[in-house]
Amino acid sequence: MKLSLDPQAINNALDGRWAEARRQGRTLALEEITHEDPADDLETTRAKTLAGVELMADTGLPMVALPPALGGRNEHATNIASFEETVTASPSLQVKAGVQFGLFGGAILHLGNAEQHDAWLVAAQTGKLLGSFAMTEIGHGSDVAAIGTTATYEVEKDEFVIDTPFRAATKEYIGNAARDARAAVVFAQLITNGVNHGVHAFFVPIRDEDGTILPGISIEDDGYKGGLKGVDNGRIVFEQVRIPRFNLLDRYGAVDADGKYTSPIDSPGRRFFTMLGTLVQGRVSLDGAAIVASKLALDIAVRYGLERKQFTTVDDINETTLLDYQQHQRRLMPAIASVYASAFAHEKLLNSFEEVFSGADESEENRALLETRAAAFKADTTWMALDVIQECREACGGAGYMAENRLVGLRADLDIYATFEGDNTVLLQLAAKRLLGDYAKEFANIDVGGAARYIGTQAAEHTLYRTGLANAGLAISDVFTPNLGEKRIRSGRLQRSLLETRLEVMVSGLAQALRPAMKMSAADAADLFNSNQHEFIEMARAYVELEKWKALDEAMREQQDPVQNKLFRRLRDTYGLSLIEKHVGWHLMYGRLPMLRARQLNETLNRLCAKLSANALDLVDAFGYGDDHRRATISTGVEAERQDEAADYYRHSRAQEDYAVPEKQLRKAEKAAKKAAEKDARKAKAGK
Amino acid sequence: MKLSLDPQAINNALDGRWAEARRQGRTLALEEITHEDPADDLETTRAKTLAGVELMADTGLPMVALPPALGGRNEHATNIASFEETVTASPSLQVKAGVQFGLFGGAILHLGNAEQHDAWLVAAQTGKLLGSFAMTEIGHGSDVAAIGTTATYEVEKDEFVIDTPFRAATKEYIGNAARDARAAVVFAQLITNGVNHGVHAFFVPIRDEDGTILPGISIEDDGYKGGLKGVDNGRIVFEQVRIPRFNLLDRYGAVDADGKYTSPIDSPGRRFFTMLGTLVQGRVSLDGAAIVASKLALDIAVRYGLERKQFTTVDDINETTLLDYQQHQRRLMPAIASVYASAFAHEKLLNSFEEVFSGADESEENRALLETRAAAFKADTTWMALDVIQECREACGGAGYMAENRLVGLRADLDIYATFEGDNTVLLQLAAKRLLGDYAKEFANIDVGGAARYIGTQAAEHTLYRTGLANAGLAISDVFTPNLGEKRIRSGRLQRSLLETRLEVMVSGLAQALRPAMKMSAADAADLFNSNQHEFIEMARAYVELEKWKALDEAMREQQDPVQNKLFRRLRDTYGLSLIEKHVGWHLMYGRLPMLRARQLNETLNRLCAKLSANALDLVDAFGYGDDHRRATISTGVEAERQDEAADYYRHSRAQEDYAVPEKQLRKAEKAAKKAAEKDARKAKAGK
Repeated sequence: MKLSLDPQAINNALDGRWAEARRQGRTLALEEITHEDPADDLETTRAKTLAGVELMADTGLPMVALPPALGGRNEHATNIASFEETVTASPSLQVKAGVQFGLFGGAILHLGNAEQHDAWLVAAQTGKLLGSFAMTEIGHGSDVAAIGTTATYEVEKDEFVIDTPFRAATKEYIGNAARDARAAVVFAQLITNGVNHGVHAFFVPIRDEDGTILPGISIEDDGYKGGLKGVDNGRIVFEQVRIPRFNLLDRYGAVDADGKYTSPIDSPGRRFFTMLGTLVQGRVSLDGAAIVASKLALDIAVRYGLERKQFTTVDDINETTLLDYQQHQRRLMPAIASVYASAFAHEKLLNSFEEVFSGADESEENRALLETRAAAFKADTTWMALDVIQECREACGGAGYMAENRLVGLRADLDIYATFEGDNTVLLQLAAKRLLGDYAKEFANIDVGGAARYIGTQAAEHTLYRTGLANAGLAISDVFTPNLGEKRIRSGRLQRSLLETRLEVMVSGLAQALRPAMKMSAADAADLFNSNQHEFIEMARAYVELEKWKALDEAMREQQDPVQNKLFRRLRDTYGLSLIEKHVGWHLMYGRLPMLRARQLNETLNRLCAKLSANALDLVDAFGYGDDHRRATISTGVEAERQDEAADYYRHSRAQEDYAVPEKQLRKAEKAAKKAAEKDARKAKAGK
Repeated sequence: MKLSLDPQAINNALDGRWAEARRQGRTLALEEITHEDPADDLETTRAKTLAGVELMADTGLPMVALPPALGGRNEHATNIASFEETVTASPSLQVKAGVQFGLFGGAILHLGNAEQHDAWLVAAQTGKLLGSFAMTEIGHGSDVAAIGTTATYEVEKDEFVIDTPFRAATKEYIGNAARDARAAVVFAQLITNGVNHGVHAFFVPIRDEDGTILPGISIEDDGYKGGLKGVDNGRIVFEQVRIPRFNLLDRYGAVDADGKYTSPIDSPGRRFFTMLGTLVQGRVSLDGAAIVASKLALDIAVRYGLERKQFTTVDDINETTLLDYQQHQRRLMPAIASVYASAFAHEKLLNSFEEVFSGADESEENRALLETRAAAFKADTTWMALDVIQECREACGGAGYMAENRLVGLRADLDIYATFEGDNTVLLQLAAKRLLGDYAKEFANIDVGGAARYIGTQAAEHTLYRTGLANAGLAISDVFTPNLGEKRIRSGRLQRSLLETRLEVMVSGLAQALRPAMKMSAADAADLFNSNQHEFIEMARAYVELEKWKALDEAMREQQDPVQNKLFRRLRDTYGLSLIEKHVGWHLMYGRLPMLRARQLNETLNRLCAKLSANALDLVDAFGYGDDHRRATISTGVEAERQDEAADYYRHSRAQEDYAVPEKQLRKAEKAAKKAAEKDARKAKAGK
């Protein structure tokens, strides 16, 4: 059952194209200052996290994405891959650095002009100019287009006036704002010559060099959160704050001295989504960060599960190791499989990100596909991380609840990943709308009902091919290609067919259900859309699941070493069959899976999990972390040491003359002796 | 759709028999000292929590369970019901008080003799003698029988010697140990005259009155955990600590001056489980506490969901309220239904607890049923609470992550409930074994494989009737009574039939699968058992789900008011159909549900959730909490205030002459004007 594997070779496959950057990130994560200590108070933790951000700046990695003219290499995935790994230091560091280099720096890079780059970009990416990214408001999170902050141009002074017109327009949850940021990229409604041109980004100084808050600006500290203690989130209110016209980041919308507005993108909706689209990096990196956190949790829980014993099952002395229990295998092995699938899917996402942002293929279509995937993957993966970390924490029992074993901290920090940089529920709807638009042209510009509005015109011109909906466009009955002849439930073709068909049927079913909306009043259309929202979201999850499965399937095919290939096949089947088991009701209801085949799922998964467990240590070794990354007492071998000591004690005790015999054993012996005596008595009687 | 309801009447139904005690608990929870502040340091939080425990002592409630001779009323559920409600103050308080009065005091009450009661019990229940409950060790949590601490009787000195023979035998995670406890009930292997009589409880002083740790005892602080900051957990090591023979809590096992051991229960296994069984109170109260935490989270999230708006869906101005979105309804309404089901099931559990401990029916059978239910309910409910609180936190977006809105704190505190007082996975196996034992006598004493050993002989003599397995004992084919004639998927008979059949088929299926184990070697039997462990655990969950559904169904029948009855029917159907949807694959695979019927589930649930949402406020009002219990900024109405202010601002703006017209609107108008001009031009041309 156990395969003979080389964890380093698996690690090479997992680390992929950006292996070097990942290893750089892991090295940085060894620096003690980057490690959170629950005993530290808020300000100490924030100061340490800032020191970590400065260390990241010192590596030069945040500069890599810049154009060569500014000292960069126009490489976009490198620093993301590297930063993701700093989650092993602390998620606070990953998030605070993400705000500084990805959001603040990234907005200047992608939305600013060359002069603005000269003015602020290098300072931002070297950590000399600390910044915030002030988009979200108390009143509007997911619906960015509806934010209330205004930036009104005054011709007389050649200035914009940034203002918070009511409390709901207060910038909220803004990272770096409570303590460190000297400037912020502020998103506001650009108003000039009596017209509101929609949301644009502005560079707004908020503190002087000494850290004193500038006039007209008030900042409140968000204080304690569910986690991310090292990130200083805050609320910002602007009261008629004046900035030079120069400070409008004007790549997609400029204002001249007379207040005349121009934009390279004519449609206001399209312009807005193009601007937001340049900030996709945040979602890409959260997808990766959630994978790193999941790996770390599994690394800890598997090591403990391989040492910890509980209950004697076979004899009276030897206890059974946790990971030999079927249920323990079922808790951790599917989690490992889905982390592997997510990691290979993330690698593809990074490739696509690099392609778009390096300019290798920045077609509208490719960009939209990247945005769709980033949204959908981020949603699925961050939820996966919460489930995986929680499973790991519970699998470690009470020890899992101790801060020193890190699982609870990871869980608390990752919690917010499900709702920041786009609420997962909203993100899935974005992806769902794209799927519908690919399916049938009339849906491409659908703008009815709730969150569909969120994605506006962005998903307009794409082909069916890119989302992989090969069968889309056919009627439901057409896609029912018979696959039931497949002999084994583990067949990859069967898995793919089931996952694909489910998605296709959902898409075409929803298209049918929603088509009448095109001719309805806005209110009726919204109602119709809303009455299908749950299915709509489920459809997007079906899409991510298929994409992740395909990524793992491809990775399997790439493994030349036959033993490693076999391991990957086990992983792929575990991931695939877990998905099919999760949705088995659907597959049965739609007649895709015969009942007898469906009943094999549970047993097949049991066997697969047992097989994977035999290589559990290889599977987590392959993540590439050491004790200094895990920093969890229970994964250092102490448990085995203590057990050996206890076993020695008992062995020694039993050899002593004064060993206290268990009453149970004594009674057994007494019973036996009594029986023997009776037997003797009967014998003696008979013999008489 | 909206029903006209009286929340107070629903509250009366929910609060049930111990309504007065619940309200007492809620009143106590208003005391400010009992509220945790995330800004407080560890020691301040601990001190405040202790002050809360003292306030609880002052209410006199912990005395109520005592016999009248000691000033009590021999009422056992009263203080549990009351304490559960203190979760609204802080889960730390509920847990620390639970350790003091339920575990420490409870062990003295249930395991001690009258003289011991005189010596310690009143002091414990009035909070004058602070204590710990030292059962778990680093090496053994779930498997209590295997703990390593020894208590060896020395005739010469008439004393027991308490000793920690190796590191794994260190008492671990012991509440009250790090700071406050002056004594501990210590569980240890009782050794006298060269025989080990198994685990017994001993009263061991650990600190003097000033708080100085006594000689021979070392205590280490567990420090930071995932939550429960107010509970001072610690590790205790005993180095040959001597206590008088008197300190053995000897109700189930006594030692005379000569070291002779006697017990009213002959079988060592049965004796052990009887001792542990008296401590069932912990699990009962965690079941209730998890329900209170879930109610509180829903109370906060529903109020916010009824105010918070996001995205315009119907027109360009009015945004849609979160709880009008189908997905939001699907996130929160099934959660409410399952909290209602759990609450009514808990009420039955409390009744059974009162029956057993007051002596009204302390039959072996009734006691075993209580233990089974307490174990199974606690597992299911604590997991439910984690899911519900997390759903609530995410449903509140970023605001849900702020400590000031309490959801993250509740989630962090409740996390450990899934693995303390019995790991949920182990507890479900305990229940599962009972189900098998009820099904067929030969399983009653099954003692193979992993955790089955844990429950030993305890579930021996019970009838089929008590677990409600009316059809058990029949072959699988027999239980397939046709129910498919039922017209509506919402039929209560259909729901019950599906839930019951699933359980019955699982039980008989597992009985068949495991029967060969009876004749196997220990190793083979353990293997066979292990290869069915996952199903075994699923079976126990099917049992709890059915029990909770039945409790809610009964509660529905008890509602005389027709409108309230209708509400309860909606709740019951939502709970029932959610369960059926969750396991729809099973119902289809086993031919219990036709595909067409199964396909109705999703839509029926959508409609039910929409209906329940119309009364969402009534449903949470009925929990009986006020702003001072919720203590969450987002549930106080601030969100609506801010929105009103924003709406006023926009209304006023639009009325102004210098209103900045949105570019979008302008372009629409321009297009229209252009068209009109062209039309005019055409007309003019034509007219020419």
